[in-house]
Parts: sequence; C-alpha cells; structure tokens
Amino acid sequence: MHPTIECWFEFGSNYSYLSLMRVEALALDAGVALRYQPFLLGPIFRELGWQSSPFAEQKEKGEYVWRDMARRAAKYGVPFRRPSAFPRRALLPMRVALVGADQAWMGEYCRRIMLQNWAHDREIDDAAVVLEALRGLVDDPQAVLAAARMEQAREALRAQTAKARALGIFGAPTFIVDGEMFWGDDRLEDALDYARRA
Amino acid sequence: MHPTIECWFEFGSNYSYLSLMRVEALALDAGVALRYQPFLLGPIFRELGWQSSPFAEQKEKGEYVWRDMARRAAKYGVPFRRPSAFPRRALLPMRVALVGADQAWMGEYCRRIMLQNWAHDREIDDAAVVLEALRGLVDDPQAVLAAARMEQAREALRAQTAKARALGIFGAPTFIVDGEMFWGDDRLEDALDYARRA
Repeated sequence: MHPTIECWFEFGSNYSYLSLMRVEALALDAGVALRYQPFLLGPIFRELGWQSSPFAEQKEKGEYVWRDMARRAAKYGVPFRRPSAFPRRALLPMRVALVGADQAWMGEYCRRIMLQNWAHDREIDDAAVVLEALRGLVDDPQAVLAAARMEQAREALRAQTAKARALGIFGAPTFIVDGEMFWGDDRLEDALDYARRA
Repeated sequence: MHPTIECWFEFGSNYSYLSLMRVEALALDAGVALRYQPFLLGPIFRELGWQSSPFAEQKEKGEYVWRDMARRAAKYGVPFRRPSAFPRRALLPMRVALVGADQAWMGEYCRRIMLQNWAHDREIDDAAVVLEALRGLVDDPQAVLAAARMEQAREALRAQTAKARALGIFGAPTFIVDGEMFWGDDRLEDALDYARRA
C-alpha cells in the first residue's frame, strides 16, 4: 500500500507556513501520498488553557520564534516577513481549504494564502484574498467561496477540529503517518522517512 | 577568530540529553569551539509562570514528547528509556558541571550523568552517582565534589541561572553563537552551521 502522510495545519500558524511551502514537493520526491487536514488551532489552544498562541502568550519564546522563522525560511529559500498581526484569523480560507482538501489545486491554494499572511503581511480572513488565491486554480472561484460559506462547511471544520483534538493534536503543523504523530515543521523530514519505511 | 558555540543545558532536561550526547563530537567535526554553560531550568520555568516543565504540565504535549524522544534517540543511535520520574532534580551534578565547565573532562562527565537519568532511570541528585561519574576523569573525585558543595559553587550556579534569564533563555538546550540564540536539540546543527559561517 502507498504510504500516506497527513498534514494537519492552520493558516494562522507560522510553522505551518514553512511546512505548506515544502510538503507537496517533498512528499512527491519521497513517493509518499499527501493528505491535507486543515483544522482550527484556536479552539484547541483554548481547551488547553491558552488564550492565544503560546508564542503570543509568552514574550521570550515569542521573540525567539521570529528569529527562528527568519533563519528557517532563509534556509529553505522561502520568503518571510514578520506579520504585523499574529495570530491572524483565517476562518474563511480554512473553510475553503476543507472544501478543497482532496482537490489537485489544494497545494497551490495553500501556498498562495500562506504567502499573503507570511510574506505580504495581508489579512487573509477576507473574501477578496480568498478569491484572488483561487483564481486560475478552479473554474468558478465564486462557487467554491459560496460552498465554503454554507453551514455544512462551517460544521465540517468544527468536526475536523474536534477530530484533531481527539487525536491528541496540540499544535500545528502536525503530521500523522500510520497513527504515528510528528509535531512541528522540523519533524516533516522525520515523518516522511517514517512513511517511506512503513 | 575561532567560532564558539555556547551550550546552555540542564541535566533534568530531556532534549538537553540528546544534545549533550552529540555536541562535543559535532563541534569538533565542525571546527567550532564548545563552551558548556550549565544552568538551572526550574527557577526560569517558575519565573515564566510554570510550576514544572511544560512537558509535565501539559498532558498531550508531555505524552508526545516521549514518543519523539524515543524516535530521535534511535535516529542518533543514543540509548533511551523513559525515566520513571520527570523532571529529575539535578542540583548536585549541576554544581559539579559548573565547577568543571572549562575542563577537558566535562563532555564525558555530562554524558555519564545524562545516561544515568535517561538510559538507566537512576536518580542523579546523589553524591554516589556523581562520584561514580567522576571516577577516572579527575584525580580526586571527592575534592571536586567538595568544591561543588561550597557556598561559592551554589552562588555561582544561581548567578549562572540569572545570566541565562537575562539572555532571554526560556528552555534547554539553548545554543548561543555570537549573540544569536538557537533553542532546542533540533537546532544544534543550525547553530553549528551558523558558527562555521560566522
């Protein structure tokens, strides 16, 4: 059976950015199937007792994270500018991501949304930004947006987030390979190695 | 000038274990001078508002960390057994580490203490364990132990921990190269690359 890596992510998460910019190409190289699993980090952080991202809650770690992000982005050749707002709300683009999770355009859509947040410092919880990201990827961007705005999509994202919680996910990105959990962009290569050997 | 990597660590920290088992050989290979900087993590965690290690405080992350440790240790070829107590007190061996920080025996001493905690599941805040670790490394283990028990050594470790706090250190291991901070065993290679290019 073809090994699969599940990529659990959220557009508001900075380390998810680094992974989404890399995972599609790396999985392809490794011969590992990729399954996108968008979920909301906010409700999970709140259940764990944090009001916001631990990076926003904790000054020392927070400051450090931006240096780490700059260095890691440079190492990967990924553009990065520290956003003026963090963490950014991403409800609408996340709903679209869940609608398109199994579609061929998903990888490129994710990279486009992520670049708006982490390289161009734009708000992303915005219909115009989402439509712009979908342009050229789907026949009818407005139809995808409309689907993402239905109560069904809202409910699907809630269910997806509950599933993440049930799996024990406490941060993003998280990779799951055959029941084995790998947390953090810096474990992406380990997760792919694990999938290859599985 | 010869580039230098400072390794800030604590024997009670699991990811410090992975780094102390690797850093001496890696720094030597990289042509980077190594400076050991033992400090106490407990007082820093308390100042940041935690009662204990975040891994002990937070169930999901805590459970994950032991899986991650087992995988990483296997990847590095380092023995690992989940200790029955975490985090372990390490006051006495830490004081000895500060006494010996600039001595040639420091690397091997650290590995011996760490192996007791992370591979043999032994308490390490114990004179017998410390003496055993020093045996064959120093002429007079009892004299080193006596030096570590003096008020001066106690005070030196407090001062060292205050210095870590002033540097913005919030976890261990932390590597500092020319003022640039790298947090976590998984940034050791990045820190060495940075030192080599400095």
